[in-house]
Amino acid sequence: MNNNKFQFKVLAHDSKTKARTGRLFTPHGTIDTPVFMPVGTNATVKTMTPEELHNLGAEIILSNAYHLYLRPGAQTIAELGGLHKFMNWFRPILTDSGGYQVFSLSDFCKLSPEGILFQSHLNGGKKHFLAPEDVIKIQQDLGVDILMCLDECLPYPSDYERTAASIGLSLDWAGRCRDVHKQDGSALFGIIQGATYKDLREKCARQLVKMEFNGYAVGGLCVGEDREIMYDIVSHTVDFIPEDKPRYTMGLGTPRDLFKCVSLGIDMFDCVIPTRHARNGSLFTKSGRVIIKNARYAKDAAPIDSKCRCYTCTHYSRAYLRHLFVNGEILASRLNTIHNLHFYLDLMRQIRHSIAQNEFINLWKKFESDYNFRG
Amino acid sequence: MNNNKFQFKVLAHDSKTKARTGRLFTPHGTIDTPVFMPVGTNATVKTMTPEELHNLGAEIILSNAYHLYLRPGAQTIAELGGLHKFMNWFRPILTDSGGYQVFSLSDFCKLSPEGILFQSHLNGGKKHFLAPEDVIKIQQDLGVDILMCLDECLPYPSDYERTAASIGLSLDWAGRCRDVHKQDGSALFGIIQGATYKDLREKCARQLVKMEFNGYAVGGLCVGEDREIMYDIVSHTVDFIPEDKPRYTMGLGTPRDLFKCVSLGIDMFDCVIPTRHARNGSLFTKSGRVIIKNARYAKDAAPIDSKCRCYTCTHYSRAYLRHLFVNGEILASRLNTIHNLHFYLDLMRQIRHSIAQNEFINLWKKFESDYNFRG
Repeated sequence: MNNNKFQFKVLAHDSKTKARTGRLFTPHGTIDTPVFMPVGTNATVKTMTPEELHNLGAEIILSNAYHLYLRPGAQTIAELGGLHKFMNWFRPILTDSGGYQVFSLSDFCKLSPEGILFQSHLNGGKKHFLAPEDVIKIQQDLGVDILMCLDECLPYPSDYERTAASIGLSLDWAGRCRDVHKQDGSALFGIIQGATYKDLREKCARQLVKMEFNGYAVGGLCVGEDREIMYDIVSHTVDFIPEDKPRYTMGLGTPRDLFKCVSLGIDMFDCVIPTRHARNGSLFTKSGRVIIKNARYAKDAAPIDSKCRCYTCTHYSRAYLRHLFVNGEILASRLNTIHNLHFYLDLMRQIRHSIAQNEFINLWKKFESDYNFRG
Repeated sequence: MNNNKFQFKVLAHDSKTKARTGRLFTPHGTIDTPVFMPVGTNATVKTMTPEELHNLGAEIILSNAYHLYLRPGAQTIAELGGLHKFMNWFRPILTDSGGYQVFSLSDFCKLSPEGILFQSHLNGGKKHFLAPEDVIKIQQDLGVDILMCLDECLPYPSDYERTAASIGLSLDWAGRCRDVHKQDGSALFGIIQGATYKDLREKCARQLVKMEFNGYAVGGLCVGEDREIMYDIVSHTVDFIPEDKPRYTMGLGTPRDLFKCVSLGIDMFDCVIPTRHARNGSLFTKSGRVIIKNARYAKDAAPIDSKCRCYTCTHYSRAYLRHLFVNGEILASRLNTIHNLHFYLDLMRQIRHSIAQNEFINLWKKFESDYNFRG
């Protein structure tokens, strides 16, 4: 751990939307925002080496405290020198607290004011108890740059009373997380919940802001609600986050989601879409998605996207990528992941550049006009 | 295709064994022998990019005419510019004729003097007929540097009469293959069969040599016979192959097999062992194999082999590799493949160097003394 302390600076504003560029300073380096964080759940961004990620322009990745706590154990990773050394990635890492994973992956999970009792989704199904304090310790054992508070993730839909009570619990946990977070230069982010209830989102945001976190996430999005409602909630919630703090929509999203949320003032994103879609053979281009297993590509000598400069597009035809995919070859997952991550990371580079040039709206309009959303 | 024609030159002999170094000249470049050829059955050496293979020191790879004929089709690959361009590997390629695969993978297969009628092992199970001439055309459509004749691969054990009759068929097919092979600079190798019958091996070898192939393979090895019998057959058969022609034991082998067969005068090897074992988590070191899923490695900060200079050993601990393996992560297969191929290719480099220095026996003795064969 070096002596660089977490900071955030806003660098430029778009004049027609709330979009902005900024810079995050972390113990393991700086990050230009808006930023997309590739997901490396198990201490690996699936199929990729860290050098490949860096060459694609990734500046920060997301990993998962829940998965690493269960296997191989945060203490083991700490003894091996921390998560950065363990996975050979020496740039910034953000870890999700695991709250979402406990709810979505566990066979059994029971909340109390003290914390969460849950059964592991892995072989054996052993029971574990995690208090908010434990979750901070796990993330500090991992030695990550940005930690997330433990919170309750509600199913969708949840009624008003249930949501209000849940916020009370999450706010209590957030305070306990903040109290035990060691000031070692790392950042701790609060997570704003409140489902689709605007007054609860406001209440949660205001309370968290009072606790003074290093950044604020909007959680509980993309859980089944309509896209327009989601955008409306993000737009509403952002107004209660201080201008000088980074804002992060967890788990988003599609290329369209990125544009929309950037326009609402969001700085940080993570999503499994580019990597998971890649492994399923669904490849992003500016004109929409290419489903590589389609028979029409069997003899297609063209690359996925003739304008793309990624390693995959500059070396391989659609015909070869289809051949690898239908044969279940691992190289298919690799080459497709390189392409999709390049698409996402390059899109974010273009978005940052357009904001700095005050041309964001034009880039967004061009994207919407070129992209075939049926794909 | 450039104008370089296939040639072979013997460069140095070991004084205590029949080991020798040499150089193969092919349309896509030169290859130092003895050489190990990584296996890329489906136009991909599993998990690897061509650049990674080259960086590991691979000079030639093996692919498979049977698999590529069935999917995506040799004609399709020809229309896309040939196998080298298709898979982005611009160095030499040898293709197995597919005889072995027809026998081992097909649900149904029937031989006649005309050729082989078989049912595809892929979905649908369509019937196909391949004459020896077809198999040469397939390999020339692929545009490879070294082609193999179609032959019959007998099960083990096969009795003397069956084997004698089979050799008659394979020799007839070899002649037909040679007659249609276009002299475009590529090489055509004959395959010596004869099971464990020394007189049949001699007869087959003498007949093939009369037909004047560019090189000679010893086929039908490692099909269930005792190791010592196999070495005895190789030793016996090599004597009937002209000194100035490359000799190739198909499908071999373990590190010990490589040393033994090099000592008998073999120049070329291919085997799935390093790549398949890698994906199964079995990793080669000079002192034996490391089974990475073993619980003893869960907190082991050391690399697979502390003296190994491969990318995997210089960047990752056994603990991390075990973590990736037990989580079924694709990166495990990649990193393990890099290590095992480095082990094989580096071993061959050492073997070539030792022969040139007339130190082969010492290297071999040291290997046998350091290696734990229980692994």
